[in-house]
Amino acid sequence: MVNSKPRPADNVTNGLYNQDILTVRQFTPELVDYVFGVADEMRTLVERFGSADLLQGKIMANLFYEPSTRTSSSFMAAMQRLGGQVIPINSVKYSSVSKGESLADTVRTLECYADVIVLRHYEVGAAAEAAHWASKPIINAGDGVGEHPTQALLDAYTIQRELGRMENLTVGMLGDLRFGRTVHSLTRLLLNRDVTFRFVSPRLLRMPEEIRDEVTNAGDTFTEHRDVMEIIDEVDVLYVTRVQKERFTDLADYERVKDIYVITPEVLANAKEKMVVMHPLPRVGEIAYEVDQDPRAAYFRQMQNGVFTRMALLAAVLGRA
Amino acid sequence: MVNSKPRPADNVTNGLYNQDILTVRQFTPELVDYVFGVADEMRTLVERFGSADLLQGKIMANLFYEPSTRTSSSFMAAMQRLGGQVIPINSVKYSSVSKGESLADTVRTLECYADVIVLRHYEVGAAAEAAHWASKPIINAGDGVGEHPTQALLDAYTIQRELGRMENLTVGMLGDLRFGRTVHSLTRLLLNRDVTFRFVSPRLLRMPEEIRDEVTNAGDTFTEHRDVMEIIDEVDVLYVTRVQKERFTDLADYERVKDIYVITPEVLANAKEKMVVMHPLPRVGEIAYEVDQDPRAAYFRQMQNGVFTRMALLAAVLGRA
Amino acid sequence: MVNSKPRPADNVTNGLYNQDILTVRQFTPELVDYVFGVADEMRTLVERFGSADLLQGKIMANLFYEPSTRTSSSFMAAMQRLGGQVIPINSVKYSSVSKGESLADTVRTLECYADVIVLRHYEVGAAAEAAHWASKPIINAGDGVGEHPTQALLDAYTIQRELGRMENLTVGMLGDLRFGRTVHSLTRLLLNRDVTFRFVSPRLLRMPEEIRDEVTNAGDTFTEHRDVMEIIDEVDVLYVTRVQKERFTDLADYERVKDIYVITPEVLANAKEKMVVMHPLPRVGEIAYEVDQDPRAAYFRQMQNGVFTRMALLAAVLGRA
Repeated sequence: MVNSKPRPADNVTNGLYNQDILTVRQFTPELVDYVFGVADEMRTLVERFGSADLLQGKIMANLFYEPSTRTSSSFMAAMQRLGGQVIPINSVKYSSVSKGESLADTVRTLECYADVIVLRHYEVGAAAEAAHWASKPIINAGDGVGEHPTQALLDAYTIQRELGRMENLTVGMLGDLRFGRTVHSLTRLLLNRDVTFRFVSPRLLRMPEEIRDEVTNAGDTFTEHRDVMEIIDEVDVLYVTRVQKERFTDLADYERVKDIYVITPEVLANAKEKMVVMHPLPRVGEIAYEVDQDPRAAYFRQMQNGVFTRMALLAAVLGRA
Repeated sequence: MVNSKPRPADNVTNGLYNQDILTVRQFTPELVDYVFGVADEMRTLVERFGSADLLQGKIMANLFYEPSTRTSSSFMAAMQRLGGQVIPINSVKYSSVSKGESLADTVRTLECYADVIVLRHYEVGAAAEAAHWASKPIINAGDGVGEHPTQALLDAYTIQRELGRMENLTVGMLGDLRFGRTVHSLTRLLLNRDVTFRFVSPRLLRMPEEIRDEVTNAGDTFTEHRDVMEIIDEVDVLYVTRVQKERFTDLADYERVKDIYVITPEVLANAKEKMVVMHPLPRVGEIAYEVDQDPRAAYFRQMQNGVFTRMALLAAVLGRA
Repeated sequence: MVNSKPRPADNVTNGLYNQDILTVRQFTPELVDYVFGVADEMRTLVERFGSADLLQGKIMANLFYEPSTRTSSSFMAAMQRLGGQVIPINSVKYSSVSKGESLADTVRTLECYADVIVLRHYEVGAAAEAAHWASKPIINAGDGVGEHPTQALLDAYTIQRELGRMENLTVGMLGDLRFGRTVHSLTRLLLNRDVTFRFVSPRLLRMPEEIRDEVTNAGDTFTEHRDVMEIIDEVDVLYVTRVQKERFTDLADYERVKDIYVITPEVLANAKEKMVVMHPLPRVGEIAYEVDQDPRAAYFRQMQNGVFTRMALLAAVLGRA
């Protein structure tokens, strides 16, 4: 279970000290505010001094069962900017797992070496399983089609930074809403904040019923669309994800829809002057390169925010925030 | 040969300064005591401060010709806990070796970059070969079925920590005693210490004659067994290794013996109250997970001790212990 | 283009601050002198203190699209010796590139994490392309058969160190002069310095016309040879490269020439007493091991110089030299 590891009784005020980060569900609005406040401090530290030594002498194991250069490099940079060290384990092939070791044993071994373990795994629930066995904090860096809580936090932090608020927004989500774990997690994080959702996707890749029900149950509203032009003029946030050809059994279906989901300057010409285009990256054509020059294109700032958010989380779970 | 690199004449008292660590044979009882004393200090440092800066500015090359996440991560953690940096070279595939370079040239190149080289290689004698060419210290992290001296030292250190002594013990070794280089090295390290050995294995995987002769020649005693139940009630240490299916030409032979070599709570019910169960890990079924809760299960503490032992060795060869 | 990134107007005197390092063509004689002066300081720092903290808090991304243990380790050591940290990205397979991401996006992502990007790529022009998109400095660590400017600088620095000058020399280059990018870059760096070139190669692997023309246009001279014995007695520098069997369509051609391009003590017996034998390494037989003991064999010192040269470049582009 989440948040179940022992915490010392003394003056540690943050609720994340020595805790696992497994799901966005553990982040109350207060905790989100706290993390964003620390992320702001981290931004200031990096901009003024390049780095800090808050985590000097601490070690983070970066245990990636499936490759993700972006996420692993982001966590590595976050730890290094705080003065900490990293043990990178980039591929199952080099891991004892190839000798048949259980995740439980791997994690209990790594916590003999490191102070915190960042885990990327291809199976839903792997992070919770690891957290069950480990006595040191586990940070879920993506478990299959399950959760990717630090991505959702950096996305929300970007919205907060770019628009000055996370409340009372119209948020468009575009592309593969069925398998895209980032849009699932971000939607959950934005509930109960007077957000109106516009879900734009091919019929095959609709937002799952479970998430739609969560929106409704929270008293928030959503509508569904086939074409981004139906919603482009009203959204404060346009969150773009990739429509992968592999998802389609009938390639003709793919060919029919793919161009609808490409953001070009022409599409953006219809958008508000103050809004943001976001993308978890990597992109492969779904946002035209010409859009990069648009001040509303926030995806590289989003990358940068990922480092600050992860710095905040690492400092928090290790008791230095 | 071992211990042949130049040492400055000044007040360096430890016998490991600037020396290679190639085999357990170079560790006299006095040197073992010295290393364990430093390992105790390292434990204190880590427990109190998390890390130290004894090796700040030093670089360790982690040259692994065959994958071993566990050993490479352990050395990396040891170096980082001492404030040093690591150049990881995890796979032959990325190495110049794939372009046909000799081990001699690779090692002489790496010593242009690093202050100490940790070498894991698939060939017996590779570490000695590397040490011959290098002017900086080589630490053997396993050379084929040859030696793995730092594993033997951490095993012995665990016995010392858990039982308070390395003398006058009954030590059971279980599983694949023929190909298991850890049991060979540990046996050698425990000679001349009034240790009685109980070797438990399938007939096919007996302790090699060479090692048995060394035990006898040292004036120590051993007996051989087929079933762990014959010795479980008298051992102070039960060192478990894996019986690998691949070792058997006749699978029926494997099926017949494999269950004898699984340690369960039922097996341990017959053991002394004060004893330890050890395993080099990874395990794949040869110790039941239920055993992990038993206070006599020392294998994860053994992992932790690996970091302290390697910290001691790194500090010693680099002249900071 | 080169040297086009914004530089602050304040008291930064070195011409490399915040600039890309893409080609030897950007290195004027004055800039070369400056870099070598800093490299000398780096040597002193390392020899006296082991390392420095000039780049503490800085992060270097080591982005290698093709494996090169030697070059990546050398850059990593250089950064670590200066107190900086490294994000290693060793293989396309683990990179987002495998998901189809453009080099532009990869580089713009990495500069959200790191302060400088070292890039090795299999395509000519990749470093310039990366530099076009990045706002942080790109260091070209080899782009296909294109440039490898830091190799040329370390080679030239080695000549300077070994012989006390880079002018008024006779330089022999041996082996594969057609595809060897190191000999191309070094030749360019030695132009306008009263250097006489002796190019020794099989006919198939002659120095390209483009380079020969550059030599002539600079007012320098070269001659071409088939056999090293024709020039061995007069060269101050013998720069050896490998003749790769794969370059020959007719294996009989290869067999006929290969032995001409092996340097042995017998060959060196005809050389000057004060000269140097260099090689970019790895070697596979083209310099006999017996030559290593010869004081004129400079190739391992050359490796060492690589670290000092790269320390100088990293410090310079990051404004700490």
